[in-house]
Amino acid sequence: MHWLTKGALSAALAWASLSLPALADGNIADGQAKSSSCAACHGATGKASNALYPNLAGQNEAYLALALHGYKNGGRTGGQAGVMQAFTAGLSDQDISDLSAFYASQKP
Amino acid sequence: MHWLTKGALSAALAWASLSLPALADGNIADGQAKSSSCAACHGATGKASNALYPNLAGQNEAYLALALHGYKNGGRTGGQAGVMQAFTAGLSDQDISDLSAFYASQKP
Repeated sequence: MHWLTKGALSAALAWASLSLPALADGNIADGQAKSSSCAACHGATGKASNALYPNLAGQNEAYLALALHGYKNGGRTGGQAGVMQAFTAGLSDQDISDLSAFYASQKP
Repeated sequence: MHWLTKGALSAALAWASLSLPALADGNIADGQAKSSSCAACHGATGKASNALYPNLAGQNEAYLALALHGYKNGGRTGGQAGVMQAFTAGLSDQDISDLSAFYASQKP
């Protein structure tokens, strides 16, 4: 799952003028264990229960981490950002890495 | 691609306290023809060229339309929203429906 090195990711993020906490390696099994509150809307394997929500299965891991950090830090607004901000408020950097690794690993 | 009726979508959007323009039926072929400026980052068939960008292939059509309208009207911020706002500024409601239909139709 780590086709993008931390160095390349850091460079890309700098280019995008974004700032993220140090990225931890995500653990798929840990992500699955932490995904119960995500599953109601995004599905247990990343297939959304409602067409207004995004499928997450097979999505790019780095993008998922970026989105989760964006919700948590309030930088991402629009759509269901209020709901997502509440769900991500208690996530650690490791939780975000694990959840991103889990959903990226699922078959679309 | 129209598993979600306009009525159900309207109800869901009302529930989400969102407001969208009247939704036009999307045309897949027209969407493909209009997708050239999307392809550099999101790929000709919706597979992103960079892991920091989301794959769009097979994503839910209604979610894609919601995202594009959110970028266009400025309600969605974070990540590459500035870039996306520029790309979506000139899109009509029909363009958004067509692009959403096209990417939703692609194999993930």
